[in-house]
Amino acid sequence: MTTRTPDKLLLRALRREPVERPPVWLMRQAGRYLPEYRAVRAQAGGFLQMVRDPELAAEVTLQPVRRFHTDGAILFSDILLPLEAMGMPLEFDEGGPNLPRPLRTRADVDALAASDPRTSLAYVGEALRRVRAGLPEDVALLGFAGAPFTLATYAVEGGTSKSFLELKKLLYREPETLEALLARLAEMVTAHLLFQAECGAEALVLFDTWAGTLTREDYRRFAEPWTRRIIAAVAPRAPLVVFAGQGEHLLEIQLALGAHGVAVDHRTSLAHAFELARGRCALQGNFDPGALLLPPAEVARRTRALLDSVRGVPGHVLNVGHGVLPPTDPESVAAFVATAREFRA
Amino acid sequence: MTTRTPDKLLLRALRREPVERPPVWLMRQAGRYLPEYRAVRAQAGGFLQMVRDPELAAEVTLQPVRRFHTDGAILFSDILLPLEAMGMPLEFDEGGPNLPRPLRTRADVDALAASDPRTSLAYVGEALRRVRAGLPEDVALLGFAGAPFTLATYAVEGGTSKSFLELKKLLYREPETLEALLARLAEMVTAHLLFQAECGAEALVLFDTWAGTLTREDYRRFAEPWTRRIIAAVAPRAPLVVFAGQGEHLLEIQLALGAHGVAVDHRTSLAHAFELARGRCALQGNFDPGALLLPPAEVARRTRALLDSVRGVPGHVLNVGHGVLPPTDPESVAAFVATAREFRA
Repeated sequence: MTTRTPDKLLLRALRREPVERPPVWLMRQAGRYLPEYRAVRAQAGGFLQMVRDPELAAEVTLQPVRRFHTDGAILFSDILLPLEAMGMPLEFDEGGPNLPRPLRTRADVDALAASDPRTSLAYVGEALRRVRAGLPEDVALLGFAGAPFTLATYAVEGGTSKSFLELKKLLYREPETLEALLARLAEMVTAHLLFQAECGAEALVLFDTWAGTLTREDYRRFAEPWTRRIIAAVAPRAPLVVFAGQGEHLLEIQLALGAHGVAVDHRTSLAHAFELARGRCALQGNFDPGALLLPPAEVARRTRALLDSVRGVPGHVLNVGHGVLPPTDPESVAAFVATAREFRA
Repeated sequence: MTTRTPDKLLLRALRREPVERPPVWLMRQAGRYLPEYRAVRAQAGGFLQMVRDPELAAEVTLQPVRRFHTDGAILFSDILLPLEAMGMPLEFDEGGPNLPRPLRTRADVDALAASDPRTSLAYVGEALRRVRAGLPEDVALLGFAGAPFTLATYAVEGGTSKSFLELKKLLYREPETLEALLARLAEMVTAHLLFQAECGAEALVLFDTWAGTLTREDYRRFAEPWTRRIIAAVAPRAPLVVFAGQGEHLLEIQLALGAHGVAVDHRTSLAHAFELARGRCALQGNFDPGALLLPPAEVARRTRALLDSVRGVPGHVLNVGHGVLPPTDPESVAAFVATAREFRA
């Protein structure tokens, strides 16, 4: 089926093949806690400028790999770019993303542009090619996208939200409109992930950041079908990891989605998650990013304890449960990565 | 031990005694979705003005009871008032609460004032007495407080937070300082709850809004001991319900705390929670407040389905899983309450 040789540690772990040690990377490993990142950002002038400039995006993607020698490099990009590509204006300010023309009606959904990521998101592809060219041989390149439900929350709310009022109104009052939106987003996300695989992404992550706000029943209707559709289309091309923020109540459903990996955060016991998974998929996680605020020695101690808790279980990718926090000391991240690299399974 | 006659439906359900139907009330049942509330608020000029005025606080507490005939009336107040009573300046603006002098050091904690709620929060007691005097005989009056961990997040962050950076720094770098703060808060919360019981509160709710951000391990260290201490001191005086926001991973621990009731949100299956509880406590919940945005007939249908899912199980208090949302139509809340009142267990 595939000519790929899955010899990189991260890819082997995602396929639950034997590994000499667990691979490690960190969500938001490229970010504000790194002085070299802040220097590039200051030069670029803003977040979107960095994301849209393949040279700068590649540079900040490579920074944590150079500094820590992580086993994965995740492209520096943003989950909302496909919304912009579909015609929704997008801005970033201090408070986060802002989509000044949110979708509220079926007509709004129907007015979304058809968009081919090969042209509308060509800069993402170019950034991936540049990263791939600069990456050590043993480091895997990861692409990613937001899951349709999470993208829908941003499209409908116009930004981040605490209570997801507009989304809930749509979900409860006009579920067919929401489903029409989800179908459009699933199509775009699928195309975008496949495009990233074409451009050199060797594994993919599907971030369903806000899925945890749904009940199991609503997740089954408004998230699972589209996630399954994406997995079916994309997983044959590159191993895919699914992440559901605040989604412990969805874990059983996620483990059965058919993804190569499921990301869990620090609130889930990793050993328990492996029991539930029963060999169906790999698990990614689940160090508390808050614990990376500790001194390096204590980070190393806690990292070893986490690795010991699942020693010998195939299919573990060490990661944080959520993104690295801005005030994190790079030395603590170094201790986290080094502990994984020195561990013997 | 007690001279109380627990004949009100809500109190009987919390003690898991036989009831003819499940009692019902709603978190944030007094609030902006009610035109009569907005009228009082416009007159008062602001949120804190209402909270501190016993007449206005009593009036808005009674409004939903008059309109819907809920089985419980929860005092209109705020969990942060005990922090103010301990010397922390407190403001409310559009973005929520603001504590301009957050605690960051052991010296800050030691500088917190000793405070007797009978004097520093006398207006809360006066509001409770006024509500009690105006309440129909069959409606139970509820008092409440924030749990120490949640109050600590506000005290340390200076307001609400997304990532709880300052709190995590303290938790990981100076856990003894955080424990000293939690001890002070537990003492104040205990006194405040006992004071509310003295002033007529017949049941109490302990809101641990941010507990769900903790791992089980950290919950056991930084929340459970203080919560248990409060329950031990308060539950002999009035039945106590504990609520942990985003806390599904903490459910097993919560069910074993010794509280009369545990609140669960819509992400937890109520029937499953009753199985886990094994008769140890009552359960409160767990209608999705987002579903109250539906038309009344659909709210009634979903409410019946929820009640049917635990029909005949003793100890259910029907409620929403989180507070009522501002754009909710009062007619949908009316349908929710009426459905419970017409239900036969």
